[in-house]
Amino acid sequence: MADAPATDAAPAGASTTVDLRSDTVTRPTPGMRQAIVDAELGDDVYGEDPSVNALEAEVAALFGHEAALFTPTGSMANQIALQLVTPRASELLCDADAHVVTYEVGAAAALGGISTRTWPATGGDLDPELVAAMIRPRAPYVVGTEAIAVEQTHNRAGGGVIPLATLERLRRIADEAEVALHCDGARIWNAHVADGVPLASYGRLFETLSVCLSKGLGAPAGSLVVGSAERIAAGRLIRKRLGGGMRQAGLLAAAGRYAIAHHVPRLADDHARAARLADALAPFGVVSGSVRTNMVVLDLTGAPHDAPALAAAASDGGVLVSVLGARLVRLVTHLDVDDAAIDRAIEVLVSVLKG
Amino acid sequence: MADAPATDAAPAGASTTVDLRSDTVTRPTPGMRQAIVDAELGDDVYGEDPSVNALEAEVAALFGHEAALFTPTGSMANQIALQLVTPRASELLCDADAHVVTYEVGAAAALGGISTRTWPATGGDLDPELVAAMIRPRAPYVVGTEAIAVEQTHNRAGGGVIPLATLERLRRIADEAEVALHCDGARIWNAHVADGVPLASYGRLFETLSVCLSKGLGAPAGSLVVGSAERIAAGRLIRKRLGGGMRQAGLLAAAGRYAIAHHVPRLADDHARAARLADALAPFGVVSGSVRTNMVVLDLTGAPHDAPALAAAASDGGVLVSVLGARLVRLVTHLDVDDAAIDRAIEVLVSVLKG
Amino acid sequence: MADAPATDAAPAGASTTVDLRSDTVTRPTPGMRQAIVDAELGDDVYGEDPSVNALEAEVAALFGHEAALFTPTGSMANQIALQLVTPRASELLCDADAHVVTYEVGAAAALGGISTRTWPATGGDLDPELVAAMIRPRAPYVVGTEAIAVEQTHNRAGGGVIPLATLERLRRIADEAEVALHCDGARIWNAHVADGVPLASYGRLFETLSVCLSKGLGAPAGSLVVGSAERIAAGRLIRKRLGGGMRQAGLLAAAGRYAIAHHVPRLADDHARAARLADALAPFGVVSGSVRTNMVVLDLTGAPHDAPALAAAASDGGVLVSVLGARLVRLVTHLDVDDAAIDRAIEVLVSVLKG
Amino acid sequence: MADAPATDAAPAGASTTVDLRSDTVTRPTPGMRQAIVDAELGDDVYGEDPSVNALEAEVAALFGHEAALFTPTGSMANQIALQLVTPRASELLCDADAHVVTYEVGAAAALGGISTRTWPATGGDLDPELVAAMIRPRAPYVVGTEAIAVEQTHNRAGGGVIPLATLERLRRIADEAEVALHCDGARIWNAHVADGVPLASYGRLFETLSVCLSKGLGAPAGSLVVGSAERIAAGRLIRKRLGGGMRQAGLLAAAGRYAIAHHVPRLADDHARAARLADALAPFGVVSGSVRTNMVVLDLTGAPHDAPALAAAASDGGVLVSVLGARLVRLVTHLDVDDAAIDRAIEVLVSVLKG
Repeated sequence: MADAPATDAAPAGASTTVDLRSDTVTRPTPGMRQAIVDAELGDDVYGEDPSVNALEAEVAALFGHEAALFTPTGSMANQIALQLVTPRASELLCDADAHVVTYEVGAAAALGGISTRTWPATGGDLDPELVAAMIRPRAPYVVGTEAIAVEQTHNRAGGGVIPLATLERLRRIADEAEVALHCDGARIWNAHVADGVPLASYGRLFETLSVCLSKGLGAPAGSLVVGSAERIAAGRLIRKRLGGGMRQAGLLAAAGRYAIAHHVPRLADDHARAARLADALAPFGVVSGSVRTNMVVLDLTGAPHDAPALAAAASDGGVLVSVLGARLVRLVTHLDVDDAAIDRAIEVLVSVLKG
Repeated sequence: MADAPATDAAPAGASTTVDLRSDTVTRPTPGMRQAIVDAELGDDVYGEDPSVNALEAEVAALFGHEAALFTPTGSMANQIALQLVTPRASELLCDADAHVVTYEVGAAAALGGISTRTWPATGGDLDPELVAAMIRPRAPYVVGTEAIAVEQTHNRAGGGVIPLATLERLRRIADEAEVALHCDGARIWNAHVADGVPLASYGRLFETLSVCLSKGLGAPAGSLVVGSAERIAAGRLIRKRLGGGMRQAGLLAAAGRYAIAHHVPRLADDHARAARLADALAPFGVVSGSVRTNMVVLDLTGAPHDAPALAAAASDGGVLVSVLGARLVRLVTHLDVDDAAIDRAIEVLVSVLKG
Repeated sequence: MADAPATDAAPAGASTTVDLRSDTVTRPTPGMRQAIVDAELGDDVYGEDPSVNALEAEVAALFGHEAALFTPTGSMANQIALQLVTPRASELLCDADAHVVTYEVGAAAALGGISTRTWPATGGDLDPELVAAMIRPRAPYVVGTEAIAVEQTHNRAGGGVIPLATLERLRRIADEAEVALHCDGARIWNAHVADGVPLASYGRLFETLSVCLSKGLGAPAGSLVVGSAERIAAGRLIRKRLGGGMRQAGLLAAAGRYAIAHHVPRLADDHARAARLADALAPFGVVSGSVRTNMVVLDLTGAPHDAPALAAAASDGGVLVSVLGARLVRLVTHLDVDDAAIDRAIEVLVSVLKG
Repeated sequence: MADAPATDAAPAGASTTVDLRSDTVTRPTPGMRQAIVDAELGDDVYGEDPSVNALEAEVAALFGHEAALFTPTGSMANQIALQLVTPRASELLCDADAHVVTYEVGAAAALGGISTRTWPATGGDLDPELVAAMIRPRAPYVVGTEAIAVEQTHNRAGGGVIPLATLERLRRIADEAEVALHCDGARIWNAHVADGVPLASYGRLFETLSVCLSKGLGAPAGSLVVGSAERIAAGRLIRKRLGGGMRQAGLLAAAGRYAIAHHVPRLADDHARAARLADALAPFGVVSGSVRTNMVVLDLTGAPHDAPALAAAASDGGVLVSVLGARLVRLVTHLDVDDAAIDRAIEVLVSVLKG
C-alpha cells in the first residue's frame, strides 16, 4: 500500500507526526519553492515550455536515451511505456507483486489491452532463467510475449535492489527472444545510490524506463518516460489520450529539475535511517528481508499485533505507517524524516512491539 | 485547433509577439505565482492536500453540486465524466464538432468503449428537438443512448454560447428519456460572463460538468469534474487508472483558486477585445458567425489567402493564429493580450488581408 | 429492429403464420439440407475444411477480391472488417442509422476502440459531398478519419439501394482523402438484383465488404469478410480473438455455397412481393419511402395504431411484423414467404389498418 | 498447440493418415449427420430455435445449473464467462499455461479489460493454498481479485485431471474470499470419465463453466457457457457483441445433442488408447508425466530429435502430431482414431524414436 491511502489519516498536529507511510508525502523545500516561482513557462502541449523541455533533455541524458516525456504521475509514465512496448492483445511478463499489476487500477489490461502473466513475487531476487522459461514465442495461435517489466527498487518487496549483473543477464535473454524490457524505475534513484550503479548503466538495458520525481526526490508531482525519440514521440500521443497533456507544466518540471540537482545523493541518508530503524526493531524478529534502501517491511506473523492494530497503536503515538497486508507493515524514510524523527519512531514502535 | 500545436512556433522575441492561438498559452501573473509559492500542500492521493480539497469544495459549490475532482487536464476531466455517465458499449450523443470526439485522441472509444453518434455541427445553435430525435431507447438488440454531451462555450464553433433556455429544454428531453447530460464546460466561465447566467444555473442542468482553470482563467494547468458525491468517488478511481492521481497537486490547485477569485469578471475584457478585432476585420467579409466570447473565426473562402498562408504572413508580423482547417483561422483573446496587442493584431491582419 | 427479437413471439401453429419480421427466419430447403449432409469437412482452424475453403474462394472471386473469411455472423464480419480498416482510437464515419452503430451492441467502440461520427440517417439517399465535408485530416491533435462505412441495402432505411454512381463518387472522395471504404453488404445481393449491378462492380469500390448468407439467401448461418489477402490474413486472427474460429464449419459453408448457387436470382420474387404488399397498403398513406428491395417500412404517424398496437393486432391474425420505433413497422419478404402468404398478409394488415 | 494449426498439413491421402494433432479434427459420424439433417430449426437470435433451446436446457441440467448458452467456439464460451465473473479492470487468477491466457489471442485483456496474474503452471496438480495466497482483497488502490479460472482437463499439461477434493478446497477458499470460480471445461467430459465424478459434482463448484462439443465429443462446432439464469441472460448480450448470435444454430446444436447422447462413455476408449500409446513409448524415456485422459505429451529433452524434427519424421510416416514447444510434442486420441490407427502410430513413432 506504499503509494495508497493509509487506514489512518494524518493527525491534526502534523508538525509532531512522523509520517513513514510513503516517500510520496514530502512537501517542497524552500529552495524548491523558489525554483517553482522562478520557473520559465510556456505551453507544453505546443512543446513550448522551457522548463519541461530542459527537464526532459536532462533526464534523457542521465539515462543515456534520446528522449524523455514528462507525465503527471508514475502510473501514467508506466502505462505509456507499457503501451509503447506491448501491442494490444500481446503479452507482458512481470513479477506477481509488480506495481503495474497491483497499484495501477487495472490500467494495463483495461486501457492498453495488455495480457499479463506473472512470475512468483521475488522482488529484488529476480531469477532471469525463470523469466526466460516463461517467454512465449509469437505464433498465430499463441499470445506471444512482447515485453518484460522489472521494478527497481521493488516497492512491495520492501525496496529490494536487483543487481546490475542480474539485469544484464535479463537483457541478453530479452535480446535472444527479441522482446522488450521496461523498467518501472519510480525509485531507481535509490538503487543507483544503494549499489553505486550509474543511471546510464541502468538506462542502456531497457527500451523504456519510468522514473519518478515525487517519491524519494521530493518533488510535488511528476514522472518521466525515457526511451528512443521515436517511442517518445508516440508516447506523447498516448499521454494526450490519457489526459496527461498539461499546459504550463514547467511549474512542476522546475521542481523536478531542482530535485534532481539537489536530492539524489542525500537518498543515502534515507537509506541509513531505514537501516537504523531496522536494527532497532530487529530484536523483535519482525523485520522482513534485508533493508537495502529507504523501506523497512515488518512481517508480524507470530507477533502480538496484526498490521492494522500496530498501525493504529503507532498512530496514537504520532507515527504513521502503511498496512500492506493482514500482517505486513511498511515504513518508508524520506526527505521529511530526520534523525530525530527516526528516534521518535523507534521509541514508539519499540513500545508498541513490546506490547 | 484551438488547443493544439500551431503550424507556426512562437518566434524567439516572444515579448513582441501577440499570441492569439489559444487562451491556453497564458503564463501565471505575479499574484498567482505568489499564491503558488504560498500554497499549503499534502498528498492528494491520500486526500490530504488542503489546497486541492479547498478548490474542489469551492468549485462544487459554485455549480451547486455535491463534489468535484481535480484533474491535470480538461481532456481527463471530460473522459472521467463520460465514463461516469456512459457505461461501456452504450451510446453518447454529441455535436459532430465536439471537443470530446475531435481533440481528445479517440479516448472516449479507445479507453471508455463509448459508442458515439453525432448531430451535425451546430455549435451554439443547438437544436434540442434534433437531439431528441436521435435518442435510442435501451433494448437488448439496440445500442441505447445513455448520455448527451454539450460544449459551452463551443470551441470549434468559435466560442458560441448555447442559451440557457435551450439547455433547459434539453434537460427536459433528457429527463423524459432518462439519459444523462454532460457539459464540457472548459470555457463555461466565458458563457457565464457573456450571458450573465449564474454558474449554478448551468450546474443544476447536468449530471456532470468539466470546467477548466487553464484557459481563459489563466492558471497553468488543471480542470475539475463536478457532480454528485457518488459519481465523484467513482471518478477518483478512474482518475487513478488514467494516471491522474498526483501527490502535492495543491501547487496547481492554489493557482486555480487564485484564478477563480481574480480572473472571472475580467473575461468581459477578452470578449470586448475579440469583438473589437472582429469589427476591424468585418469589412473583409471573413468573420464567421457572430462573436460572443473570446474567439473570432475567420472563414477565408473567397479570400486571397488560405489559412496556412494567412497564418504564416501574420506570424511574420508577430501575430500568431490557429489554423482550424484549409480556409479556417481562429483568433483567441486572453489574459496575456491587452488593448495594445489587439491594436497590433488588427494592424498586422488588416495588412495581410489587404494582400 | 430487423435482425432482433420481435415483441411478439411466433405463435405455436407456425405453419399458418406469415413471418415478415426479418429475412433471417428462413429454414433450410430440402436441397440445402442435402448439401449440408453431403458436405466435405475438415478443421477450419487448421485451414483444412474443403467446404469453407471453396466458399471463401468463390465469394472472393464474385466480388473481385483476393480473399474472404467465413464468420459465424454478419456482426462478426462487420466488426472484423472495421478493425481492419480503422485502427484503434481513429475514426469511422457512417450513417446515424447504420447497423454497425445500432444493432451490434456497441462492439465497434467497446471491442475495437473505434471512434464514430455519423451523418444524418439518409439510407439509400447517400450524399457523398456531405460525407466528404465530415472527413477529418490526420494530425497529432485531431482524431483523423480512417474509414467510411456504407450499408447496401440499408436495413433501417427499408432496404434502400445506394446507386452505383453515388458509390463511385464516394470512392473518389475516399481516394483523395486516403481513407478506406467498408461496405456492410449483408443484403448486397438484394442491391445487385434490384439494380442489376454486378457484384464485382460493387466489390472493386471497397477495401472490405461483409456479405451475409443467412438473410435473403436463406442459409442457416454465416457471413464473410471480403478483402485483400493481407487484410484477410489479419482478419483471421481477429476472428479467433472474437471467438469465431469454428472447427468443421464446412457444415454451414456448404449451406452457404448452395444458397449462392440457387437463391440469388430468386430475390427478385421477394422484391416483387414486397412491392405488391406496399401497393396494397399505399391507400392508407403509411408506406414510407419507395420500396426497392424486400422491405416495406410503415410510418404510422397519423394512423390510428402505433407500432406495437399494429404488431399485436397483426400477430392475432397470424402475421408477424417488426417494430422499429414507436410509429415505425417493418415488413420483410423472404424465401419462406410465397404469394399466398402475401395475400394473407395483405388481408390481415388491410383489416387492421381499416381499424 | 492443441487447438492450433500444426506445422505439418494433413497429407493428401488422408484416409491412411493417423491424425493425433488434436481431438478437434473429428468429422461427424453418419448418425450425427442424420441428426443434423433432421434438426428442427428456428431463429436463435429470437430465442426460437428448438434444437438450441433443447441443448441449452440439457447441458444446464447435466451440470446442475439454471441455464446455458450455445456459442460457436470454446474460446467464445470462455471469454463470455470471464467477462461475466471478472468486471473490467479487475483481476483473474489462473495457471500460467491456461488456455485462456495462451490460446485465446489475448481476448481477456484486449476485449474484456481483465487483468491477469498467474500461478506457475501446474496443470492437474493444482495447489489451492498457493492460489489462496495470491488472492488480492478489493481496495480502492489495489487491483482486487474477482475470479479464479481452472482448466479441467488441462490442455498444455497433457490432459491432467484436477481431483475433485482439490476443487472443493478451492471452492472453500473462493467462498471465504468472495471471489468467483470459472471452469474452462472444454474437456471436462474426459475428467468425468477418467475420475468417475458426476458432471453435476463439478458443476456445483463453479459460478460459470464452459464445455465444448467439438473436441472429444466429436461434434463439428459449438460450446456452451453454463451458469445462473441471470448470468446467462447477460452472457447472451456479450455473445451478440462478440458476433456469436447465429440464426438457425440448431444445425450445430443437433450435432451437439447427438454427441452428448452417444459419445461420452466412449471417451474411455480414447483414454485407453492414449495409455497404450504411452506404454509403447515409455522405454524411450520421453513420456512426460502420467497419462490420465486422451493426451500424451512427449518431452524430447535428451532425445535425438527436437519437436519439429520428430513431427516431420512422423508426418512422413503418415502420423500427425502437434508441436507444443521446441522439445515438446503432443499426441491426442479421439473419435477418428481406432485401435489399428494406434498400432500404426506406435509403429511409426517407435521407428522415429529409434532414429
